[in-house]
Amino acid sequence: MRKFKVTFLPDQKEVEVDEGTSLLQAAEKADVYVNSICGGEGSCGECRVQVLSGKVKSDRYAIGFFSTEEIKSGYVLACQTPVEDNLQVMVPARSRMEMEKIITEGIPTYGEPAEEYLPKAPRKAAAVTEPLVKKVYLELPHPTMSDNVSDIDRIVRELEKQLTFSSFDMPLGCLQDLANKLREHDWKVTATVARHNATGRILQIEGGDTTARSYGLAVDVGTTTVVAQLVNLKTGAVLGVEANHNLQARYGEDVISRMIYACGKGSPHLLQSAIVTNINTLTRALVKEHGIETRDILALVAAGNTTMTHFLLGLTPCSIRLEPYVPTATVYPQALAKDIGININPEGIVEVLPSVASYIGGDTVAGVLACGMGNQSEIKCLIDCGTNAEIVVGNNEWLVTCSASAGPAFEGGGTRFGMRASLGAIEKVEINGGRVNYQTIGNAKPRGICGSGIIDCIYELARNRIIGQDGKFELSMSDPRITTEDGIPQYILAFPEESESGKAITITETDIANIIKSKGAVFAALKSLMDYVGLKFTQLDTVYLAGGFGSSLNTRKGVAIGLLPDIDPARIKFIGNSSVTGARMALLSGPAFEATRHIARRMTNIELSNYVPFMNEFIAALFLPHTDGKLFPSVHF
Amino acid sequence: MRKFKVTFLPDQKEVEVDEGTSLLQAAEKADVYVNSICGGEGSCGECRVQVLSGKVKSDRYAIGFFSTEEIKSGYVLACQTPVEDNLQVMVPARSRMEMEKIITEGIPTYGEPAEEYLPKAPRKAAAVTEPLVKKVYLELPHPTMSDNVSDIDRIVRELEKQLTFSSFDMPLGCLQDLANKLREHDWKVTATVARHNATGRILQIEGGDTTARSYGLAVDVGTTTVVAQLVNLKTGAVLGVEANHNLQARYGEDVISRMIYACGKGSPHLLQSAIVTNINTLTRALVKEHGIETRDILALVAAGNTTMTHFLLGLTPCSIRLEPYVPTATVYPQALAKDIGININPEGIVEVLPSVASYIGGDTVAGVLACGMGNQSEIKCLIDCGTNAEIVVGNNEWLVTCSASAGPAFEGGGTRFGMRASLGAIEKVEINGGRVNYQTIGNAKPRGICGSGIIDCIYELARNRIIGQDGKFELSMSDPRITTEDGIPQYILAFPEESESGKAITITETDIANIIKSKGAVFAALKSLMDYVGLKFTQLDTVYLAGGFGSSLNTRKGVAIGLLPDIDPARIKFIGNSSVTGARMALLSGPAFEATRHIARRMTNIELSNYVPFMNEFIAALFLPHTDGKLFPSVHF
Repeated sequence: MRKFKVTFLPDQKEVEVDEGTSLLQAAEKADVYVNSICGGEGSCGECRVQVLSGKVKSDRYAIGFFSTEEIKSGYVLACQTPVEDNLQVMVPARSRMEMEKIITEGIPTYGEPAEEYLPKAPRKAAAVTEPLVKKVYLELPHPTMSDNVSDIDRIVRELEKQLTFSSFDMPLGCLQDLANKLREHDWKVTATVARHNATGRILQIEGGDTTARSYGLAVDVGTTTVVAQLVNLKTGAVLGVEANHNLQARYGEDVISRMIYACGKGSPHLLQSAIVTNINTLTRALVKEHGIETRDILALVAAGNTTMTHFLLGLTPCSIRLEPYVPTATVYPQALAKDIGININPEGIVEVLPSVASYIGGDTVAGVLACGMGNQSEIKCLIDCGTNAEIVVGNNEWLVTCSASAGPAFEGGGTRFGMRASLGAIEKVEINGGRVNYQTIGNAKPRGICGSGIIDCIYELARNRIIGQDGKFELSMSDPRITTEDGIPQYILAFPEESESGKAITITETDIANIIKSKGAVFAALKSLMDYVGLKFTQLDTVYLAGGFGSSLNTRKGVAIGLLPDIDPARIKFIGNSSVTGARMALLSGPAFEATRHIARRMTNIELSNYVPFMNEFIAALFLPHTDGKLFPSVHF
Repeated sequence: MRKFKVTFLPDQKEVEVDEGTSLLQAAEKADVYVNSICGGEGSCGECRVQVLSGKVKSDRYAIGFFSTEEIKSGYVLACQTPVEDNLQVMVPARSRMEMEKIITEGIPTYGEPAEEYLPKAPRKAAAVTEPLVKKVYLELPHPTMSDNVSDIDRIVRELEKQLTFSSFDMPLGCLQDLANKLREHDWKVTATVARHNATGRILQIEGGDTTARSYGLAVDVGTTTVVAQLVNLKTGAVLGVEANHNLQARYGEDVISRMIYACGKGSPHLLQSAIVTNINTLTRALVKEHGIETRDILALVAAGNTTMTHFLLGLTPCSIRLEPYVPTATVYPQALAKDIGININPEGIVEVLPSVASYIGGDTVAGVLACGMGNQSEIKCLIDCGTNAEIVVGNNEWLVTCSASAGPAFEGGGTRFGMRASLGAIEKVEINGGRVNYQTIGNAKPRGICGSGIIDCIYELARNRIIGQDGKFELSMSDPRITTEDGIPQYILAFPEESESGKAITITETDIANIIKSKGAVFAALKSLMDYVGLKFTQLDTVYLAGGFGSSLNTRKGVAIGLLPDIDPARIKFIGNSSVTGARMALLSGPAFEATRHIARRMTNIELSNYVPFMNEFIAALFLPHTDGKLFPSVHF
């Protein structure tokens, strides 16, 4: 078999491979990291590389992923390109390891959650004592003629001493070989017991003491990103976290377009298969990284919006998007991993946190659990902002919630140079006397602007009177950074010589209009909820910010542009990915899991889509900070 | 393709078939019934026919099923013999439709049960109102913006009005397409709800009103025979009944040899597969006969001994036969038909009635339910006699039970001319002054002697002093019917010219000794139980006879030989196949189903295998009627 040499740039790593080896495999052999989500199926487009010298076959997958210009420049998908020549290959920044900073936990760390935002009791105390699945080691007395109860009764008799379930059941599959297992292991076995309502469901019996090997996954099934934490069910420790992009993106950017696809020319099964692949990819990575066995992962708790939940469980989502917005279910049955193709222990359980309604899902319920607002007498607010913003207001007596479409602006979409919060994204901006200072993620050359950078930008432009409170440019101003392209005014944040691409990075008047709509929708939704319950913003004890907003968001500037209510910035707290945090709390604590059902039942959903007060609030909010200045007494441009 | 003519005798039916057609198919085409249990796999040996003229290939299956002499005479299995010549084929009596009279219901009918033996309440009233699975027709209000609960909540809200379960759950599989189903059928659907402990388990949702199509199966899983009744769950009516021979017979005659096979060179899966095939064959016949759809059979309740139950559910039975006789389970989880390969509605439920211990199974529990002895204050007794005899004594306050090996004598095995209660079996015998009068099943020429005939025989021989009370022949008697073969005395019941085979039908001294052992074991077990609870036979209000004994058993003669206790024969009642009757009661009534668990828990099992009083009683009972004549005051030979 012929062999060829492949050199990967910019690392200058060389490797010799057999003819026909894929570039992705070659990179792996050369220890060069190339992104890949789909596992080499040519479907995610993450493994783009540029062949600088040497011949490769044209890539039939390329058309969907590259522009004509890129194809001419030698761009291919590494996983779809066999090596048939000596090659020089450039791995561009976006295909390299420096992935997007997906928010995988309570701000700011990746590992242990930010303790201060979590109610102590369920996470700490209950966590370690009552996870959804628990292993119990049993040394059973040998049967005798005077004690010859059945094998399963012998087990249950011991379990009743150690666990508090009102009854136990065991699926037929586990019963079938029970007799042999007990006798082969001299009546010393470990029972894995899952909470199933008030019943203990015996998932498996293993020989010997395996209680040390007991893991679970907490998963945030986001429309855009999927985050999984690997948790030790015995100690409660988070062992690791992984994140990837929701593979459903190939079927549509947002939940609406994916539902249309699933209920039209596609099918819900395709969407289910995509998200299951996401989870399995994350699981594989976590298992490898932490040297554990897949079969020792015994439970998965997922939180997602109602549509994602329907897709994950294979439920038809078609009525969710149509008035009167009816989901198939809001409380979901406990499933077994094997039933939905999740590659953990096949008898392991999958619980999906309950939804409130079609547009208030388990991710929001998880957020309420994570911040603890439903347990406290003070009135608090949770704003979980992604493409949709879900808002919850309430305390231990009542909870109201609503959902509004914020558009993609805060997530880096819908603006010309918008990008996700990944390497090279401008995340902070200050403008003073015509000079622009910015900070990029990873201190790399700027490649675009992420959500927090865009909020900074709007604020700085308004503060410097470069734009008016209506978001329009003051074209009379003389500033070399203000230019016009195709008749649309724009502001240059980074000149061509500063950026990675060699092109200027700008923010246009259209971008600004889009952002004002986004912030207007979020604020109007919050204002509508507050009015609904007859409260003033000053009565809010705390505002929790979850989801897309990272800790890099400047809350003062967020208030100033009218995105956040004008309260003491000290009372605005980031809780990061509260969806995964809530999922983990439920995984580690039966009472916390039960609490999610209680929370979901308690939440009153205000449907904004035909709600006139919201329409009026929205129009009033299309101004910086707001047409009603009295709502923002601290803001002065 | 060549064609050949096949003529079937004794019916003289002719048919022309293609070369290669099996004789079994040819018979079907000619409308000649030939028995077949295994469905043409060559494994049951039921379809034996004799080729009288024309050539057939030698049958490689024949060796296991035929004697060398039979093979020479042209005997083949019809299912394994292709037609390759013009043939004349005899269908012998045992392969014809006149099958064994398997007891399929409370004596004496095949259809409706003997009402008088059944407690009224659970069977009549509850039956029609609370079967284990019930279809409920729902006309749901359409969702609106002010009533947009989830689809499943809309269904449960209505079900709660009509059913009394504390909660409902729905397996993921049914939820997945629910949204479409509701909308396609304009919110008019039928929910199939199974009782699963206190929860209503929604098995399926169908469009429109399908409540009229709701069937269940009650199955007696016997070691020798399997009986299935098809029941209308809405009306409680028994639509039909079918029976066949347990295919596990190929792995051993009795439970012990089958366990040894399953736990040795075979596997429990083979035994499970055999019994599942039995049930599927019966189901297919019932479905065809009554013109219903397989998918409308929604539940199956089976009753069997503990070993059969383990085999049916695929549980390892290996510890049942070894001291201290521990089964895997005595209460069995509700299974779905698809999980064990039962061909009814795949989401239909399979419930197996609970056991008491390794040798007291769900069939005995079903018997207690069927005769109602557990509800009444009078002390009653149930004797369920097959190869094993299970005996229960008690009332509504206490129940004791034991099991003893009766051997195969009462079922037609273990004696020279013993046969099952099928066509040509001598079932009644009278001997007067050297003359023998007998009655055969179907008034056919005698082929052998079944259980009731054998009991008659022993009694008549003793009454005529042809044998002594020790069961030995009085060889001094001059009677042409008394002869000796190989040194063993025997009595000729039917001379060669009377019988079907042209050979004499006899009962030997060895046969009599075996039967005395069998009746001794049954009586000793009953006596041991009575002594254990300190009761005299006269305190028994009723003795119910179930199982192998048909109504043709003469109770007076059964008492006289010491098989049955010496009480007023009017208080001895046949209840036939109480296993299938009890299974049907549980199928038709949730309370009756719950009662089986209660009965099983209440029954105290006396293990006779090492019980000294039983050993002594057994030896004392090896006499006609008994060594202690005071126990049988009414009997005088």
